[in-house]
Amino acid sequence: MKRIALDMDEVMADIYAKFLYYFERDLGWRPEKKDYWGIKIYELEGATHLRKYLHAVGFFSDVTPMPNSQKVVAELQQHYEVFVVTSATEFRNSLVDKWDWLSTHFPSIHWKNYVFCGDKSIIDADYMIDDHVSNLQKFRGKGLLYTASHNVHNKDYVRVNNWLEIRQFFQEELAKEGKTL
Amino acid sequence: MKRIALDMDEVMADIYAKFLYYFERDLGWRPEKKDYWGIKIYELEGATHLRKYLHAVGFFSDVTPMPNSQKVVAELQQHYEVFVVTSATEFRNSLVDKWDWLSTHFPSIHWKNYVFCGDKSIIDADYMIDDHVSNLQKFRGKGLLYTASHNVHNKDYVRVNNWLEIRQFFQEELAKEGKTL
Repeated sequence: MKRIALDMDEVMADIYAKFLYYFERDLGWRPEKKDYWGIKIYELEGATHLRKYLHAVGFFSDVTPMPNSQKVVAELQQHYEVFVVTSATEFRNSLVDKWDWLSTHFPSIHWKNYVFCGDKSIIDADYMIDDHVSNLQKFRGKGLLYTASHNVHNKDYVRVNNWLEIRQFFQEELAKEGKTL
Repeated sequence: MKRIALDMDEVMADIYAKFLYYFERDLGWRPEKKDYWGIKIYELEGATHLRKYLHAVGFFSDVTPMPNSQKVVAELQQHYEVFVVTSATEFRNSLVDKWDWLSTHFPSIHWKNYVFCGDKSIIDADYMIDDHVSNLQKFRGKGLLYTASHNVHNKDYVRVNNWLEIRQFFQEELAKEGKTL
């Protein structure tokens, strides 16, 4: 079976919804997509401190799974080995939160297939779906760029905007082998 | 730089000393090496429950670094990228303990180079030092088998019995390239 390395934050988990929650609480207004599209939300004026919340216990514990992600992961698992490869070791307190979140929201993914790391260049897989261009640049397999505010200008990778487009991509990959998702 | 993937338990960290502590506490006697050499200590009569302690908060927090491991890791880092690749995701509560332990005892290893995983076949590196034959079997680089009670009969890999032998191995590797450790 070919192997897919799935990023967690901003691919499986809607981290920006959480940032928006904290942004509005701390700054008193809620930015619209147009305000941070093309940058990171914590690059907006007065919002630098938001990134520090990534270190807090609980930040990752109650984020929302991306629409259709659970359903499409289950479909992909029929044909691929699905690993979650998440940059977690920068954030000591994220480790348990992420473990709990994955086991709650993606119970079909075995703990054997969790990878909590820092530098994804050590990952050997056939596909990587990630919102960070820097991770895809060091990857030797096929990289898919999941759209996030900070990567909208990149044109170097197959872009996926949502999980239905991920599904479509792998439908086409499987069709080349005469298989259906 | 070539990359070394270091296992943590029973390679960097003396897990068996901790098992012996619990064994003696729970069973009232302290096994000698000859009693468990060739098997796992928790395969001894009455000791099956010991493996459950791996799931407890704190089990991994105060283990002792293997003799010479810190010094040799620092030397290896002059010539290699050193990653810690540890089977941690089976044990939710080990994650933070392992993070804290690594940052305390091996501060020269950056968090970017921690990999907490389950299935090491996803790791791409040049060398892997591990006490589990199953991990080396799935590894495409050069595997070094670190002696532990459960692997003493294996003859398929370069065997290292301690960190001075690891040092010696890499001295010889570097000598092939005209370098010295």
